[in-house]
Amino acid sequence: MSAPRFAINGAKGRMGQATARVLEAAGHNIAARFDKGDTFDLSGADIVIDFSTPEATLHLAQACAAEGERRGAPIVQVIGATGFTSEQEAALMPFAEKVILLKSGNYSLGVNMMIGLLKQASARLSAEDWDIEVTEAHHRRKVDAPSGTALMLGAAAAEGRGVDLAEVKVAARDGITGARRAGDIGFSVIRGGGIVGEHSVLFASEDELITFSHSARDRTLFARGAIQAGLWGRNQVPGLYDMQDVLGF
Amino acid sequence: MSAPRFAINGAKGRMGQATARVLEAAGHNIAARFDKGDTFDLSGADIVIDFSTPEATLHLAQACAAEGERRGAPIVQVIGATGFTSEQEAALMPFAEKVILLKSGNYSLGVNMMIGLLKQASARLSAEDWDIEVTEAHHRRKVDAPSGTALMLGAAAAEGRGVDLAEVKVAARDGITGARRAGDIGFSVIRGGGIVGEHSVLFASEDELITFSHSARDRTLFARGAIQAGLWGRNQVPGLYDMQDVLGF
Amino acid sequence: MSAPRFAINGAKGRMGQATARVLEAAGHNIAARFDKGDTFDLSGADIVIDFSTPEATLHLAQACAAEGERRGAPIVQVIGATGFTSEQEAALMPFAEKVILLKSGNYSLGVNMMIGLLKQASARLSAEDWDIEVTEAHHRRKVDAPSGTALMLGAAAAEGRGVDLAEVKVAARDGITGARRAGDIGFSVIRGGGIVGEHSVLFASEDELITFSHSARDRTLFARGAIQAGLWGRNQVPGLYDMQDVLGF
Amino acid sequence: MSAPRFAINGAKGRMGQATARVLEAAGHNIAARFDKGDTFDLSGADIVIDFSTPEATLHLAQACAAEGERRGAPIVQVIGATGFTSEQEAALMPFAEKVILLKSGNYSLGVNMMIGLLKQASARLSAEDWDIEVTEAHHRRKVDAPSGTALMLGAAAAEGRGVDLAEVKVAARDGITGARRAGDIGFSVIRGGGIVGEHSVLFASEDELITFSHSARDRTLFARGAIQAGLWGRNQVPGLYDMQDVLGF
Repeated sequence: MSAPRFAINGAKGRMGQATARVLEAAGHNIAARFDKGDTFDLSGADIVIDFSTPEATLHLAQACAAEGERRGAPIVQVIGATGFTSEQEAALMPFAEKVILLKSGNYSLGVNMMIGLLKQASARLSAEDWDIEVTEAHHRRKVDAPSGTALMLGAAAAEGRGVDLAEVKVAARDGITGARRAGDIGFSVIRGGGIVGEHSVLFASEDELITFSHSARDRTLFARGAIQAGLWGRNQVPGLYDMQDVLGF
Repeated sequence: MSAPRFAINGAKGRMGQATARVLEAAGHNIAARFDKGDTFDLSGADIVIDFSTPEATLHLAQACAAEGERRGAPIVQVIGATGFTSEQEAALMPFAEKVILLKSGNYSLGVNMMIGLLKQASARLSAEDWDIEVTEAHHRRKVDAPSGTALMLGAAAAEGRGVDLAEVKVAARDGITGARRAGDIGFSVIRGGGIVGEHSVLFASEDELITFSHSARDRTLFARGAIQAGLWGRNQVPGLYDMQDVLGF
Repeated sequence: MSAPRFAINGAKGRMGQATARVLEAAGHNIAARFDKGDTFDLSGADIVIDFSTPEATLHLAQACAAEGERRGAPIVQVIGATGFTSEQEAALMPFAEKVILLKSGNYSLGVNMMIGLLKQASARLSAEDWDIEVTEAHHRRKVDAPSGTALMLGAAAAEGRGVDLAEVKVAARDGITGARRAGDIGFSVIRGGGIVGEHSVLFASEDELITFSHSARDRTLFARGAIQAGLWGRNQVPGLYDMQDVLGF
Repeated sequence: MSAPRFAINGAKGRMGQATARVLEAAGHNIAARFDKGDTFDLSGADIVIDFSTPEATLHLAQACAAEGERRGAPIVQVIGATGFTSEQEAALMPFAEKVILLKSGNYSLGVNMMIGLLKQASARLSAEDWDIEVTEAHHRRKVDAPSGTALMLGAAAAEGRGVDLAEVKVAARDGITGARRAGDIGFSVIRGGGIVGEHSVLFASEDELITFSHSARDRTLFARGAIQAGLWGRNQVPGLYDMQDVLGF
């Protein structure tokens, strides 16, 4: 297979710039950079890393589909936008027939690895004996809690047990709480300084603890993960994929 | 100084038994064991380890004072009871003129070391630049949160900054919390399995983190700390001391 | 299926006693207890938890095979002895046709869960980008390093990458080491106090870290794991199984 | 006191640039920037942050002394160079009579806080009961082990106990090590990915653990510490100070 040629959508945004830096450092070819209002000329690109908005993502998907048909080989579109409405999700679906679409709420390889493994661990460790607790730490400027990633981890743990996170989530403990209920998934939140992002999931039994932890040093990791997803996508047929697919879970 | 002779009050209780085990393993002399209803015959003892109740502690203090006067050398009484009313606290005070009283809510050497050092750290690290967060983890049977020890640690950190913990305490975070306020001291709580007791205090600035952590493996550590306090007390004059004094802070 | 009836071989040993305590606390039926020199009367037992020696294990396997044939239903033998010679391993094999044999160097559910997940993680995270480091901490009395469990974890990580641990193991770093070689698996060792057993495996890339940790509070966990293995074994056909099978990896 | 005016020596170096960024972000006045070959015109500066070389540092100290005498008020020179020979150390000393000299091998506030507190902890926790272990983790490009900072931490712990680190240092464990010797200070080393710098010091007794940890996110923290040292220096008389003085230990 020939050397991949990349395009970046949302090239002037923070993640677009990080993507360009990682691609350049790795010696990859950046064939095109798009921002709001630009026409999508994809003639020189095989993989588009798209950290834009749901609207722009939908327009880009149309352009990817057309270009793929023109050249007789599908384009890879790695979607980093979040906040899709259910209508926008539905509108994206038809393009999965012609475009190799990758879509994830978090392109960190490490977090997605944890999600894949957590599901297996929680499926194998009985809720009667093992208590699950999710802890996260972020910088002082973060305004919501728990983090979206902490909730994704909690949801993965719940899924492994065949329950809904909403039914078992305990979001904060203060005062007379009573004993812990078997099956609950607890969350605890730390805020301070410039912490980029720390997440851990604890399985605690009467006499042993297993902990899965993730620590992010720099947001560049999301650009790296999106690029890796794009390279993986080149070997796939059109369809809608996520990072669990990239990791082979 | 001759080999110390110990007595245990509350000898059949969980902590009294642990104290006996530690004393025996170290080859110390246990001259007497008292429980509810027993007469305090202190004629063979120099140090009484007293894990009883506030009422029993007060009666014992009276006996210690009398025995100390009789022999012309003060007795050491290490008080492990908690839950003293302010009247009981006041009633205890006069005995500090005749008895070497040690009193602490937690006889762990490690926790008390952390308290002494935390005060210094928080006095030296500006609240503008450094955020303080206290995290604790305990077994699933614990019914209150945060733990008393976590609150002691938070109070020590606040004291170093010359503020009241009550004014800066943030006990749990969930939902839209807004950005962290400078000067706040946050608490987070983990419950699971058989965790004996984990405490950590984090100082987080924009680009570095300092963490003080304590991990308890077994409640025996409280017996060990109380015995060490008693041995330290032998070299003191009558008065009311705590573990910060034992550690020389 | 009727309530399981247990027997314990090596009943007076430390692990045999721990097994009895766990079985009794859970309300299980202990039909027989064997120690050195005893005749193995297995008529009342379905599952034998066997923390003895390789020699005793082989004799017991013979008795299990005979009793299984007699009643027309195989016995479960959970083998906790270690240090089998290759001859002893070979001598054990034929019994796997008539006995449901479970054999593991470590019956901790948590450690075995980590092993199963680690293989997957190391198979998915490229050695070029992700460095693997194994850290362990044990009490001051331990005389060898790294621990057998740390080596098991390192071997699992190496297996996931399709390499031999012996080729990539870096056991200690001191002085001018040069830069780390891609693909190496490093070990570091902490010794102190009464630490029961801590193990962690770190995957470190340029901008993220994933850590798998295990903490043991009490050796009872091995008894619990062996019992759980025995209960799982009841639903199997004769054969030789290990804890990866019990966990369904 | 009027607003401080800064100069930077070694302004084009990595640490000089980081210093400029931090000063600018904080709205401080940068009066002059010097690099190799420049004449030191200090007429507009009160504090010089000097991340140069021992030779350049000595020339700068001469210029600081002269300028201080000229204006009748001493200059603050914060020295970040390392690798001074004993001759260079000796040559620096006389300037301490006229210049407010700050000199440290590590300007991290956090690491220096740990050093100050560690000395106290190790002085108070008996070597018989408490084992000390230093662990550090750095990126894969680091060529030596343990890190200089790990050795500083070990030396502080040894100093608290009144022993030389050289006598008690155990640098790596592999194979049959025998039981741990009371009083030893162990080191363990982790290398992987892009880890900026993690250090921890563990005190382990039979049933409790105390850990002091430091995590660096970005080298900027050294610039921040040097600037804070310079601001502290403004209120001092000429002399030779280090970060322990700045922190008030």
